[in-house]
Amino acid sequence: MADKAVIVVGAGDALGGAIARRFAREGYAAVVVRRNADQLEPLAQAIREAGGEAHPFGVDARKEDQVVDLFQRVEAEIAPVEACVFNIGANVRFPIAETTARVYFKVWEMAAFAGFLTGREAARRMTARGQGTILFTGATASLRGSDGFAAFAGAKHALRALAQSMARELGPKGVHVAHTIIDGAIDTAWIAENFPERYAAKAQDGILNPEHIADAYWMLHAQPRDAWTHELDLRPWMEAW
Amino acid sequence: MADKAVIVVGAGDALGGAIARRFAREGYAAVVVRRNADQLEPLAQAIREAGGEAHPFGVDARKEDQVVDLFQRVEAEIAPVEACVFNIGANVRFPIAETTARVYFKVWEMAAFAGFLTGREAARRMTARGQGTILFTGATASLRGSDGFAAFAGAKHALRALAQSMARELGPKGVHVAHTIIDGAIDTAWIAENFPERYAAKAQDGILNPEHIADAYWMLHAQPRDAWTHELDLRPWMEAW
Amino acid sequence: MADKAVIVVGAGDALGGAIARRFAREGYAAVVVRRNADQLEPLAQAIREAGGEAHPFGVDARKEDQVVDLFQRVEAEIAPVEACVFNIGANVRFPIAETTARVYFKVWEMAAFAGFLTGREAARRMTARGQGTILFTGATASLRGSDGFAAFAGAKHALRALAQSMARELGPKGVHVAHTIIDGAIDTAWIAENFPERYAAKAQDGILNPEHIADAYWMLHAQPRDAWTHELDLRPWMEAW
Amino acid sequence: MADKAVIVVGAGDALGGAIARRFAREGYAAVVVRRNADQLEPLAQAIREAGGEAHPFGVDARKEDQVVDLFQRVEAEIAPVEACVFNIGANVRFPIAETTARVYFKVWEMAAFAGFLTGREAARRMTARGQGTILFTGATASLRGSDGFAAFAGAKHALRALAQSMARELGPKGVHVAHTIIDGAIDTAWIAENFPERYAAKAQDGILNPEHIADAYWMLHAQPRDAWTHELDLRPWMEAW
Repeated sequence: MADKAVIVVGAGDALGGAIARRFAREGYAAVVVRRNADQLEPLAQAIREAGGEAHPFGVDARKEDQVVDLFQRVEAEIAPVEACVFNIGANVRFPIAETTARVYFKVWEMAAFAGFLTGREAARRMTARGQGTILFTGATASLRGSDGFAAFAGAKHALRALAQSMARELGPKGVHVAHTIIDGAIDTAWIAENFPERYAAKAQDGILNPEHIADAYWMLHAQPRDAWTHELDLRPWMEAW
Repeated sequence: MADKAVIVVGAGDALGGAIARRFAREGYAAVVVRRNADQLEPLAQAIREAGGEAHPFGVDARKEDQVVDLFQRVEAEIAPVEACVFNIGANVRFPIAETTARVYFKVWEMAAFAGFLTGREAARRMTARGQGTILFTGATASLRGSDGFAAFAGAKHALRALAQSMARELGPKGVHVAHTIIDGAIDTAWIAENFPERYAAKAQDGILNPEHIADAYWMLHAQPRDAWTHELDLRPWMEAW
Repeated sequence: MADKAVIVVGAGDALGGAIARRFAREGYAAVVVRRNADQLEPLAQAIREAGGEAHPFGVDARKEDQVVDLFQRVEAEIAPVEACVFNIGANVRFPIAETTARVYFKVWEMAAFAGFLTGREAARRMTARGQGTILFTGATASLRGSDGFAAFAGAKHALRALAQSMARELGPKGVHVAHTIIDGAIDTAWIAENFPERYAAKAQDGILNPEHIADAYWMLHAQPRDAWTHELDLRPWMEAW
Repeated sequence: MADKAVIVVGAGDALGGAIARRFAREGYAAVVVRRNADQLEPLAQAIREAGGEAHPFGVDARKEDQVVDLFQRVEAEIAPVEACVFNIGANVRFPIAETTARVYFKVWEMAAFAGFLTGREAARRMTARGQGTILFTGATASLRGSDGFAAFAGAKHALRALAQSMARELGPKGVHVAHTIIDGAIDTAWIAENFPERYAAKAQDGILNPEHIADAYWMLHAQPRDAWTHELDLRPWMEAW
């Protein structure tokens, strides 16, 4: 049994899965979380086949009680949470006049509020121990609002403000909080199906390999505490920015 | 009767009141909005005594139907909305571990979601006419997260993302959207009572006069469309930043 | 004779001229500066015909002794310098491999070093009196480097760092330092001749009117010291940003 | 003999030395550069004793001909330059009124102009081969001007603009350009002697270990081109920011 755990909230996509596998390879119990636990089975299977330890959890990360319960169970039944990754996105695009209140709320609830709940529960445990890493996945919309992105940029800006506020509060308590800016298409089935032209750039390394992003997340966690990074960007060499 | 209206959402404080009076002085019907209409009477009275037109509305700006109704009534019964100011803050400070889900949500709902509803309804009318100004009041927390400000900075970052997204979408449609960074204490009864030492700086112009901020808001609205400002900061000369 | 002066360094273009005229209209002795004084005659003439006071100076603002001498003469012979505008640009674009050391140096010397000399001399006088305004003209390249703009963005970034450093040092001494981001084509003969398609946007207010930029500069100078702006952007409504 | 070289300009300090050693350990010929080659002997010795290859060069990086010559000789006599690090700082602090033209120029010449010369020569070789990494060392002053730092922040802002402009131009040509923000004291003899109180934080990992910064530089160079970082910060866990 591993003596430390990583929690990956939003392990349903290619990136969340790669991060979980990366930490599992380093000996962490990989607690993989998405709304529907059944859909996590292939990922858990892959981690175990590679010799790692996987614990799938079906959790709606927008529900406070479920998030609180997740951390309690992991700490009680699995291992201390040494790393926590919040990786839920919600990329939508609507003209402002067609952005419904429901969409504006849902995007924030998923991409910011769930991040707050996850980050806070991680912070509570890690602060008590004076160590641990909390990583938030951001995007270009974390830095700049754009035509059609009032809801998405709003949620991503809020998540970055959370990461920065937490980093400044928790750094001096030994907890490393960092935020990434993922700028570009990630190699996923969804991109392959919906943006075939964009996906074709893969042949020239024009889209992000989730394994390489996962390496960066691991590097952030592995940094010694005298030299911590609080924000870094990741994008393909050919990406305009 | 005025032939154009300004809506000031968050007219309950010194700044909202000063903005309303400023626009009323320029001949705008001042639609002043806060949750409790009764508390708006002194402001409405002051505007009228100065020869202006005031329309107090009791509206909970977090409720979509109330915001939609507000704009419909103003446009039907008063005048076209030529300017709209969203001026609701929600400055709270808590360590992350003590930030309740309720606080995190409430701060966002008040400072960002209500801004979205207000901005969207204004945008719908103004875009149709190809003119108008929408102003959002920001703060230092709009630019940077800090220890204890996960909730407040999150909401203010989201509001800024909204302003920037709307500015980029609506500018080319003739609607001017701008965001202000108010950095420093504003001259209010609340500051006088709760931060007497800070308030003492008033003698040396060390706190912001709401009338002067209101001048900046009017200036933004009055800018000709070949030279629009989308963001400006305002702070006292002695303020460290 | 005016009892206060504005110095406009870089009064050779449409914007510098408009700023000088604007301040002259408010009763300031307009000290207009460019390398070749002869070419300032039409501007000086226009200021005088409008009832203002104009003093053309031929100064190479990259030469310390000339800048020092300029301020000494203005203060001794004309009036105290209450406002100072540095408005020299040097927009060039080269691939990095084709950027000569000479170009890199010259662009910095003109757009940053001359700004430092001008700002420092203004600061010396204004700090002693505890009042005054120093304004620096920036551009989009002040905020972000782009393909081909290593030299120009480098100089403009340096100028912004100067403005920000001076604002933080001199604000508490009563001197207002501000930086503008001019983003878009300005209505000049040069744009008309070289970018006729772009110039055609003028019919729809798609290029910046120098008079309107000058209004913003005057507004910055006129701000009461409890509510100072340290940076604002100006761009046409149709501009993509 | 190594088949690829790293050039470290500014190898005189603890950080430059650590970076050179790090790349040498990975099999790179370490071309270490500072004004006085003699002072590089201990570093070269250390690299060689660890089994690496070291080539000390006495070069004044502010002189175009010397920088051009450096790259020509390295490429002709040693190996293709696969990585290049510009690591010269020039941290000075003066009130604006006491900042001499000489200081303002010297700081820029050392921290920005030399970076331009170095970066350009690296770019010329790397672009031709469609690969390579160019790294620039930045600081907090790269992001923000502060009281007393007009010269230093100006130079560091210019260097960051250079890095960003080059990254945007050269990325699509296969060359990775990145900028670091080193925020905090580095463990050097100079800090130990001049800031003993600050140095005492070393016991708690409160100052940056050059070896750990060097790890980050190596990581940047080793990133696969589908997931490049263009900017990251590094600071001790206890650092306020």
